[in-house]
Amino acid sequence: MQKIRSGTLAALFFGSIFIPALSLAAAPADSPIREAALNDTVAWDFIEGLTTEIGPRPAGTPQEARARDWAVTKLKSLGFSNVRAETYTMPVWLRGHEEARVISPYPQNLILAALGNSASTPEKGIEDEVAYFPTLADLEAAPEGSLKGKIAFVSHAMHATQDGSSYGYFGAARRQGPSIASKKGAIAILIRSIGTDSHRQPHTGVQMWTDGVKPIPAAALSVPDAEQLTRMISRGQPIRLHLTLSSKMLKDQPSGNVIAEIPGGDPKAGVVVAACHLDSWDQGTGAIDDGAGCGIVAAAALQASKAGPLRRTIRVLMAGAEEVGGNGGRAYYEAHGKEPHAMAMESDFGADRVWRVDFKLPQGHDALTRRLATVLEPLGIGASRLPAGGGSDIEPLIKAGVPVVDLQQDGTRYFDIHHTPDDTLDKVDLQQLRQNVAAWAVALFEIANAPESLGVK
Amino acid sequence: MQKIRSGTLAALFFGSIFIPALSLAAAPADSPIREAALNDTVAWDFIEGLTTEIGPRPAGTPQEARARDWAVTKLKSLGFSNVRAETYTMPVWLRGHEEARVISPYPQNLILAALGNSASTPEKGIEDEVAYFPTLADLEAAPEGSLKGKIAFVSHAMHATQDGSSYGYFGAARRQGPSIASKKGAIAILIRSIGTDSHRQPHTGVQMWTDGVKPIPAAALSVPDAEQLTRMISRGQPIRLHLTLSSKMLKDQPSGNVIAEIPGGDPKAGVVVAACHLDSWDQGTGAIDDGAGCGIVAAAALQASKAGPLRRTIRVLMAGAEEVGGNGGRAYYEAHGKEPHAMAMESDFGADRVWRVDFKLPQGHDALTRRLATVLEPLGIGASRLPAGGGSDIEPLIKAGVPVVDLQQDGTRYFDIHHTPDDTLDKVDLQQLRQNVAAWAVALFEIANAPESLGVK
Repeated sequence: MQKIRSGTLAALFFGSIFIPALSLAAAPADSPIREAALNDTVAWDFIEGLTTEIGPRPAGTPQEARARDWAVTKLKSLGFSNVRAETYTMPVWLRGHEEARVISPYPQNLILAALGNSASTPEKGIEDEVAYFPTLADLEAAPEGSLKGKIAFVSHAMHATQDGSSYGYFGAARRQGPSIASKKGAIAILIRSIGTDSHRQPHTGVQMWTDGVKPIPAAALSVPDAEQLTRMISRGQPIRLHLTLSSKMLKDQPSGNVIAEIPGGDPKAGVVVAACHLDSWDQGTGAIDDGAGCGIVAAAALQASKAGPLRRTIRVLMAGAEEVGGNGGRAYYEAHGKEPHAMAMESDFGADRVWRVDFKLPQGHDALTRRLATVLEPLGIGASRLPAGGGSDIEPLIKAGVPVVDLQQDGTRYFDIHHTPDDTLDKVDLQQLRQNVAAWAVALFEIANAPESLGVK
Repeated sequence: MQKIRSGTLAALFFGSIFIPALSLAAAPADSPIREAALNDTVAWDFIEGLTTEIGPRPAGTPQEARARDWAVTKLKSLGFSNVRAETYTMPVWLRGHEEARVISPYPQNLILAALGNSASTPEKGIEDEVAYFPTLADLEAAPEGSLKGKIAFVSHAMHATQDGSSYGYFGAARRQGPSIASKKGAIAILIRSIGTDSHRQPHTGVQMWTDGVKPIPAAALSVPDAEQLTRMISRGQPIRLHLTLSSKMLKDQPSGNVIAEIPGGDPKAGVVVAACHLDSWDQGTGAIDDGAGCGIVAAAALQASKAGPLRRTIRVLMAGAEEVGGNGGRAYYEAHGKEPHAMAMESDFGADRVWRVDFKLPQGHDALTRRLATVLEPLGIGASRLPAGGGSDIEPLIKAGVPVVDLQQDGTRYFDIHHTPDDTLDKVDLQQLRQNVAAWAVALFEIANAPESLGVK
């Protein structure tokens, strides 16, 4: 996932983030939806099937294409309408062999994973001294040229947070570290994984080279390996490292989105987009990132549709190529951006429970905000004053002014697993998954049937 | 670790495993030892140094030789006497490349690790159908020859236990599964890791081919990968797997034990052996298996010696080649078995707290049992009626009749990590480690100074 979190801090400065308690004079009309969704089986079956039968599905690869076929078949069998794949082409970075070894003074292997768009080393690898930077700011402060012939190693102090905000902050080491290190002359960069676990599972992830910067080999050490290297460095002797990373770039590979709809009765009222992404990183099976999101939005759309006819069409968007830069979200907007959109929502933060709801609605929609807060409260979800930011699959829609509601999931465990081989089905908790389906189902029903005029045309 | 647990079940049938509460009329005389040991820094420093500066140290390899040199230097600097390495030679199995891929119907890679003494596949690997056995008993029940041309896959239902007894029971899939599968014609065997975690970290471990059995490729899938393969199998279609495992066997490689002593005043009273093992499996840094044990026994011997002169010599035995069959323990017995031994103890079950003490003493030593129970009770350790079994480094001594006391550690987390790449320093909890040092220090002091006649000559 790539959360958009601009505006969060500003809101924090202007008082409590939570809106006042709401009137609960009557039992919410949505109770049957909520109760049915809390026993949902569709979401689990979707995630179990996708992760087992397809497994890893990197953007632009044959595995992602198989995932599209699988999802189209599955969504049709679940009764969705207008199910189809919409394809586009894109460049693809593919991981090859990767190996790191401390040569001296404490010879041993380290476990790492190349970052997206990493350059390759020569086939025989490179061997050089490590230059250590406790934080990204320390790397930024290094004089130009001072890293010539060195392997930069950047650490950080990321800890788990419920709202996932530590990823935005500490993730800069991955997103910006490689370009900064290259500018200063480094021949390669290693970062401490952007993760909160203690397992030898490196966290990969995309990074983009800034304009004019020469790509260099770039990889993440697992957290225990980063700590091991730090302990070696603290002993004071120069550390020499041998590094082999191979990868390749392919042009014009097919990727695509899968779209499925629950048709509404009033086409002019605009569609409600319920987004997730179908691609995953290459080393796990993409259970929490983002098989879970796709299972949740599909199951919730079905649960909402069972409660009666909908005014607006719910359009499930299972985007392609989210992990490598949001190609699917952009392709969707190019194809559909001019259609009327009433609301955009996205599920891409695992399967742990929804604990907060954020809104970004036009002026004058306080009544809808209150109704949504009321139907979500029985699920233990507090309505906040923080602006909803969405995620990268719906980013172009949001930039165009489409309203957005975020059902924020508990991210405490998320970065233990995110972008590692460990992103597998066993990490999904069925009861928390069902709470997600229930939250989405009651919210989608309320939004799809809202009598207000919503969105942009 | 390879615990010897014979006799445990028998004891359970004859009543409560715990001996009655003990008289605590006076504050135990050992309090200063215990209090000092609860602030020990030697054990942590030992484990931190060994795992950082040496890292993995497989039996019979240059890394194990470096670990011996490191330990000799360290133990001398800590003030031990008669510090030396005692070497021997042995055959060595070395891991090579390993890869598994489901070919059809759900193509994807699986993560695995070869078991010790596994045969190699041809360089290009093998490809065949999987034959699934939910338990080892199911494999045993398969007709002779029925596995011809098949890759056997054996699962099990191991769960964590405080006393580690699930390892003895479920570990049979690793110890016996390969030989049984080969006898029935299988071309390879995969087992679900003998582990209790949910991470993609396969658990390796030794297995020995029974006489006359043809070695076949044998490996453990990580727990999530074993579950993934089981889900695929449950769908009913034949699963075809491609498997590449390479390894090599070397003859007559050097291994060895490291020995260090705190000399006692009465050589005729017999030595007290405090054992651990210096070798580790090849993929982790051997923090809990068994850097921790070596840190604990070295630190405890020093803490005991600080409290005053000792009657008996405490001999720290850091054995080589425990993981591959106990070569170090046998070499020790060949060299020293005829010397008088008063007691043998071993620490090889991680660094979590000691919760129970077991005894195997000759008739007439109830007073020593009571004194040990009394000094251990303030550390939250209950004295049991279960017979102590020791571990493989001291197995030859125990078989020869040397008394043994087991300070049983909490094994609830142990098999999450055991024999995986995840066996790293961050898994050691400093406070629990110090409780171990305190338990060992008070016990060693009591045993080394016991006025009774102990042991065999």
